[in-house]
Amino acid sequence: MVLDALARLAEERVGHRFKGLPPDAADLTVGELAAQRRNLFTDGFTTPVLALSAERLEHNLAALETYAERHGLAFAPHGKTSMAPQLFHRQIERGAWGITLAVPHQVRVAREFGIERVFLANELVDAAALRWVAAEQDADPAFRFVCYVDSVRGVELMDAALDGASRPVDVVVELAAGEGARTGVRTEAECAAVADAVAGARALRLVGVAGYEGEVPQADPERVRAWLRRLVALAVDFDEAGRFAGLDEIVVSAGGSAWFDAVADVFAEVPELSAPALKLLRSGAYVSHDDGHYQRLTPFNRVPGEGGLEPAFRLWTQVVSRPSAEQAFTNAGKRDAAYDLDLPVARVVRRDGVERPATGIEVTGLSDQHAWLRTSSEADLEVGDWVGLGLSHPCTSFDKWALIPVAEADGTVVDYIRTFF
Amino acid sequence: MVLDALARLAEERVGHRFKGLPPDAADLTVGELAAQRRNLFTDGFTTPVLALSAERLEHNLAALETYAERHGLAFAPHGKTSMAPQLFHRQIERGAWGITLAVPHQVRVAREFGIERVFLANELVDAAALRWVAAEQDADPAFRFVCYVDSVRGVELMDAALDGASRPVDVVVELAAGEGARTGVRTEAECAAVADAVAGARALRLVGVAGYEGEVPQADPERVRAWLRRLVALAVDFDEAGRFAGLDEIVVSAGGSAWFDAVADVFAEVPELSAPALKLLRSGAYVSHDDGHYQRLTPFNRVPGEGGLEPAFRLWTQVVSRPSAEQAFTNAGKRDAAYDLDLPVARVVRRDGVERPATGIEVTGLSDQHAWLRTSSEADLEVGDWVGLGLSHPCTSFDKWALIPVAEADGTVVDYIRTFF
Repeated sequence: MVLDALARLAEERVGHRFKGLPPDAADLTVGELAAQRRNLFTDGFTTPVLALSAERLEHNLAALETYAERHGLAFAPHGKTSMAPQLFHRQIERGAWGITLAVPHQVRVAREFGIERVFLANELVDAAALRWVAAEQDADPAFRFVCYVDSVRGVELMDAALDGASRPVDVVVELAAGEGARTGVRTEAECAAVADAVAGARALRLVGVAGYEGEVPQADPERVRAWLRRLVALAVDFDEAGRFAGLDEIVVSAGGSAWFDAVADVFAEVPELSAPALKLLRSGAYVSHDDGHYQRLTPFNRVPGEGGLEPAFRLWTQVVSRPSAEQAFTNAGKRDAAYDLDLPVARVVRRDGVERPATGIEVTGLSDQHAWLRTSSEADLEVGDWVGLGLSHPCTSFDKWALIPVAEADGTVVDYIRTFF
Repeated sequence: MVLDALARLAEERVGHRFKGLPPDAADLTVGELAAQRRNLFTDGFTTPVLALSAERLEHNLAALETYAERHGLAFAPHGKTSMAPQLFHRQIERGAWGITLAVPHQVRVAREFGIERVFLANELVDAAALRWVAAEQDADPAFRFVCYVDSVRGVELMDAALDGASRPVDVVVELAAGEGARTGVRTEAECAAVADAVAGARALRLVGVAGYEGEVPQADPERVRAWLRRLVALAVDFDEAGRFAGLDEIVVSAGGSAWFDAVADVFAEVPELSAPALKLLRSGAYVSHDDGHYQRLTPFNRVPGEGGLEPAFRLWTQVVSRPSAEQAFTNAGKRDAAYDLDLPVARVVRRDGVERPATGIEVTGLSDQHAWLRTSSEADLEVGDWVGLGLSHPCTSFDKWALIPVAEADGTVVDYIRTFF
């Protein structure tokens, strides 16, 4: 069934739906187009077109597999980043325990593609979505689902919506990253109250604790480690209080893309509990990495001996206007590029098959469908040139492209990644 | 064929693909789901879910139809806003001449759904896309396509790519909105040079002039009108120079969503030319309007006697966390709401079927999948409540939703609008 769902992706017609694909491929299926191994630069792709580097994608998938394994961490990469079932399966083939997700719609996509273990890093109080989760659990004994609880009221709403479910829903208490931080219970006393509520709920089972160190206020290595130690201490306290009695494993989860080194360090200190600890890392941005925010924040900058990530996206745009010596405009804008954390950066220029660095070219703004480029006297840029942009923030890059060509270094497109947003 | 393409939208399976739709409707087609006339609040829709108001959408469609007709303007609403073929057809049923678009992919979507007249408000120098346009023109005598030219090099690239096409591609010279503004030719002398290049190109035909007053630097009514008069004067000069000889009509086009009153005023002054003028207005944001940017900028604020627009979007989100008296978090973020011009605004709260104003509730930030809410002591807000958000910027609202329920005031969902981004 999983293979069926993935195989059906290759049977989709290229048609008119997917930005950047060759117009003369409209009558082909995606699988047929992939089999043609077209070249991104010479075989009819239209701009703007976002491409993933085949080699860099593979490198990044391997880098976090190795990292998690070396540190004894289970890995549930955050799938909200790509929302690409093909990538979910490549992550799982590389040892991931399951996939982390943020909202029920994302869980439905993952289930459609046969993902067996889902960690929903949110409290879920939507009654219709909870009924669907319960039905999915009833229908498939292999489906493992865990989500957050962070309030007594949330527990009550969940329990009411799940009335009649034959299998309880597994939950972890979310510890907030600090005062004024995002979701999660703010104090250990309130955590205990929420856990008490779970204990009194027929349809829920407490299986651990979790949180997100990426929201620690004024985060630095010391503050992040201090919060992670609070999280581990909460697990120990809960365990000593008998709250995890009878479990096969106890979930302790944290870890975005900026502090997985701290998570590895502190989770290495988790003492023996009454059941084995499932130390679950949830980093997601690594899969494509980026040319901005996560390039600055990746923990591999602090531990370069442990590996590194490579920016796998390149957004190819075309110069459509060069109205003055200081300005140029390409045909990609807010519809095509991430712009929430940083503007794109001009990396390379292609003309007549020759690629060179984008010297003297800076992206200064995005309209809906245009990029604004400032050019210095060093810039050699003409109408018709392709400009390859680096992007910042994988999450808001993936979500602008429903089908993404995966190209090898010479431009040969070997695969197409489908996203579901 | 058009009706076929639209009908096929109703045959799409609801499945797992579309955010916010009821999980128990997965086996239905979109048409079957619409026929059930479900209620947005009580019949299984999951949050977050973006809804369009049926009545407000209708109101807005009528408002610009009336405005354009009253002022003798042809209307090619910018389709990049919605990229919704169903809305394109409703716009055309209400008298629109055709649809404006920004990039070739959007033209392909419009053509798939039988749109006969397309104004591409960009220079198009992508050879693969130009070959597709030429083939489309050859295959369908009723297809009318017009695009910008703004450089001699652009004209040369277009002419080379179109070599062998049996019908020339119609172009208009784009006059830039000023020094440092976006695309377009900066001076009248350069406009003449570009027009000369078109005259020398076998595959192109000059049919008019165009531009975008929304980019006039430090725009105010006087500066915008001054630029519009330059545009009209350019048309007159070109006409007097015989550049439009033999045409059935001469295109003069401007008009976004912030200055259509100025466009109406100045285009009323277009003198008699050697052929009738097609005065083409291109406003697009009006279709959904918004609760922010365009609410402030709409020309109807200056001419309230001529009509008005109503914000037709509401993004329904659910409170998943209430960690302190000052904070709450809902389950919609950058994946769901426009955030490029303003943050969303909390409009209403629903609990147990009762809707009330969102007193004391302010959206202070968006994460990828969360909205951050600050609450004052006046706010009555609990985990599980639905919060209805108003959005700013139609373009970046539509593009986050592939299928949008259209709901009447009582919540009855009467239609679903499909978008193609």
